[in-house]
Amino acid sequence: MVAPVRAIPNAAKRASSLLRTIQYTHPPTCPCHSTPGYHQSPPSLTPRALQSGTRRYANSIRSTELKEYAFEMAASSIRFGPGVTREVGMDFKNMGSKRVCVVTDSTVDKLDAMKQVRQALTSEGINFKVYSNVRVEPKDSSIKEAIEWARPYQPDAFLAVGGGSVIDTAKLMNLYSAYPDADFLDFVNAPLGKGRPVDKPLKPLVAVPTTAGTGSETTGTAIFDLVAKRAKTGVAHRNLKPTLGICDPINTRTMPAAVKASSGLDVLCHSLESWTAIPYTERTPRPRNPIMRPAYQGANPISDVFSFHALRSTVKYLPRAIRDPDDFEAQSEMLLAATLAGVGFGNAGVHLCHGMSYPISGQNPGYKHAGYDVTAPLIPHGVSVAVSAPAVFRFTAASNPERHLQAAEVFGVDVSNVKRESAGEVLAEALTKFLAELGDQPKGLKELGFGSEHIDELVEGTIPQARVLMLAPGLSKELEAEKDQLRRLFEDAMSH
Amino acid sequence: MVAPVRAIPNAAKRASSLLRTIQYTHPPTCPCHSTPGYHQSPPSLTPRALQSGTRRYANSIRSTELKEYAFEMAASSIRFGPGVTREVGMDFKNMGSKRVCVVTDSTVDKLDAMKQVRQALTSEGINFKVYSNVRVEPKDSSIKEAIEWARPYQPDAFLAVGGGSVIDTAKLMNLYSAYPDADFLDFVNAPLGKGRPVDKPLKPLVAVPTTAGTGSETTGTAIFDLVAKRAKTGVAHRNLKPTLGICDPINTRTMPAAVKASSGLDVLCHSLESWTAIPYTERTPRPRNPIMRPAYQGANPISDVFSFHALRSTVKYLPRAIRDPDDFEAQSEMLLAATLAGVGFGNAGVHLCHGMSYPISGQNPGYKHAGYDVTAPLIPHGVSVAVSAPAVFRFTAASNPERHLQAAEVFGVDVSNVKRESAGEVLAEALTKFLAELGDQPKGLKELGFGSEHIDELVEGTIPQARVLMLAPGLSKELEAEKDQLRRLFEDAMSH
Repeated sequence: MVAPVRAIPNAAKRASSLLRTIQYTHPPTCPCHSTPGYHQSPPSLTPRALQSGTRRYANSIRSTELKEYAFEMAASSIRFGPGVTREVGMDFKNMGSKRVCVVTDSTVDKLDAMKQVRQALTSEGINFKVYSNVRVEPKDSSIKEAIEWARPYQPDAFLAVGGGSVIDTAKLMNLYSAYPDADFLDFVNAPLGKGRPVDKPLKPLVAVPTTAGTGSETTGTAIFDLVAKRAKTGVAHRNLKPTLGICDPINTRTMPAAVKASSGLDVLCHSLESWTAIPYTERTPRPRNPIMRPAYQGANPISDVFSFHALRSTVKYLPRAIRDPDDFEAQSEMLLAATLAGVGFGNAGVHLCHGMSYPISGQNPGYKHAGYDVTAPLIPHGVSVAVSAPAVFRFTAASNPERHLQAAEVFGVDVSNVKRESAGEVLAEALTKFLAELGDQPKGLKELGFGSEHIDELVEGTIPQARVLMLAPGLSKELEAEKDQLRRLFEDAMSH
Repeated sequence: MVAPVRAIPNAAKRASSLLRTIQYTHPPTCPCHSTPGYHQSPPSLTPRALQSGTRRYANSIRSTELKEYAFEMAASSIRFGPGVTREVGMDFKNMGSKRVCVVTDSTVDKLDAMKQVRQALTSEGINFKVYSNVRVEPKDSSIKEAIEWARPYQPDAFLAVGGGSVIDTAKLMNLYSAYPDADFLDFVNAPLGKGRPVDKPLKPLVAVPTTAGTGSETTGTAIFDLVAKRAKTGVAHRNLKPTLGICDPINTRTMPAAVKASSGLDVLCHSLESWTAIPYTERTPRPRNPIMRPAYQGANPISDVFSFHALRSTVKYLPRAIRDPDDFEAQSEMLLAATLAGVGFGNAGVHLCHGMSYPISGQNPGYKHAGYDVTAPLIPHGVSVAVSAPAVFRFTAASNPERHLQAAEVFGVDVSNVKRESAGEVLAEALTKFLAELGDQPKGLKELGFGSEHIDELVEGTIPQARVLMLAPGLSKELEAEKDQLRRLFEDAMSH
């Protein structure tokens, strides 16, 4: 048989031309776009579906915003290996860096990771200065201080050594050093800030995580408290992402068990939330310019691969990593899972657990989590995220029961005879059991000191998290209905 | 319970210090490193294993080269969606590009993809010039011509629109424009070239693939014929990788069925070879500087995720994509699979199918593949790669039967009762059946016109492919033994 030679089959040509027309003039309303059960594969844009979409479109043009039709995947380069921290001096030398701003916090500054970093930079003759005043759970004020410190130094590269707070602070030092005239709120996520895109490349940033949780070494996201608004928010743009994440499992050995647990719970929620976020084809509005396409774009075929893989690793290795400080395999796997989940949620987003966690930790009635060496009350980020997880996935399951059942299966549940309607209940139970078996985890908001009298304020604190709420499946786009749903979610999260 | 507070457990501290010592003075000879069955998880570097490694090390220092202990994952950003080609003008505007060198071939130049590109650039007012003389299966001479064309134009960015030949040529135009004084062989892979690392960032390169095969839009590899040496070789370095791959499934609709098949077979082998390549921890030597760490570094936990996912997609969608030119879902999935396999093999490497394919297509006795519009004999790359696949995986299975069985399972084989010793045979059979069912595929080297009289020359043509052969599991490092093995592989590949 002689196959057609460089000829475009006529049917294909017509379909192709139709596709282009539809893509740019009509919303792609093929069946999968309006089916909440869409998943696992990109939209099946058959010409027939598109034609039917065109017809339906005629009836709905005035009320419909264009939905997204593409997704973008971007991630930092990742280097992984025990002892690999030592290579960082050569990396900066290879990049031709001459003045490196090293960012860390006062605790990590005393750990072996920083010793390795200092030796590595010194032995390659790299000029550097250490900023070790990063605040854990940074506030806008602590970020601004860090920026003020960095600007006069005029570094040609940044190196972050620490957990998410350190890496996020370093990202913002890098950003605002590159835009010396920008107002602080310019780049902050809307609606609290102006959500200006980062439209030029920043200086190289190398991130060396010392916790296995944040995934910040691979993402373009930086989170902090905007104190005046009593809200957690941040800056999110692909250009903010580190050039290279150096994942050295020796560095995460220094985490105490409580830190291992809470950062691991962050990984768990990163993977579960990005796995269950609305598909990117359901997100509106479609950006007019690719630079406006958010990193938190909804679940997509590439983020899915990362998120699901990270979920499996976390369920398998987190209990071992917490139980046995000498289980180096489990700890290495958790660092890898944190990074893979970072690529997953960094390109898909998170939703309700994270959206609700910000007021939970911000409005803490006085809870102090065991195992953290702090004088003031503290709900660690991972704890504030996981505490609502059973309630959240009970709520979101209706949007996509298959995905929730697949997740429950990862926890060891036999789902072969579970009905789709029970998917949320089954996953919620699996999560409750998992949290209980980890130990030292609050069994709901009540144990953190919250009561029904706090719910209204918690809801008000969640509403500004538009960037993640828009990815929550099943959440109403109408404000009062949305508040109602959130109220019920917080109620359900009181105890599990 | 109060967990330990920021304290490093003593056992962990000792282990950590031991780990560092081992990493930098001794080869990590923990059990998994010498077990061919290692896989699925990073090496389990328990302190005990490392201690035993230290003892063993004392006996072997003189004969052992340091093995690799880390891996690095780097990939281009990827944007995927039907119609997304149109965004490329905005991308260059966002980057501030003013002179774009557009690279394509004379066939693609007439297709809709190039029309979209011209419109997109023009509508954003981007100045550009089109080089449409790329040679399919490029030679050093055609590459040099392209470089000579690009240099005086002094573009500030490159845009490749086409298959692997186009994207690879554009990478080299970008490279040698940045190093105007470099000798052509400086960057070419050793031993044919000098293998100099690319030690500075190149101009932005955006790649728009029009075939679903090469994965070149995500990799740092560029392949061509080095005519004087009668060998296929190339340049491979992370810094060569495109800034952005724009994967628009509308662009791959123009592939004739024969091109779909052969590029799909390339994807199949990219995923199978990277999935079965030696683990990175078996590769020697450990690089002294991270810039020398090859992109083809052996299988690793991140490449595994991509390679296996791409394998599953290819087995599922390639037959549909070839059979029905209107099956847009299957064709979209194949483009995505090609890109994901690109991330997989781009960070792990390929081995024998690719190593052997270069002399197979270079020493073609006169075979002209059906469905290709060429006057001279031609064995398409994907065909030359897949023709030896049954023989190759029959050979490599002994190194890691589990992985080969997992691959066979993807083809629908029930492996629950298959013995490990039969893994190679079972996978070879599954591949043979898959190739036969695709149709129009040669059933071995004989059908391409090769006979036993050609084997010596085929072996000689494979030997220079050191970069991929070093990743072939089970291949001897001793030259005569290696030649013997290759001879038997080519014999076995004569017919399947």
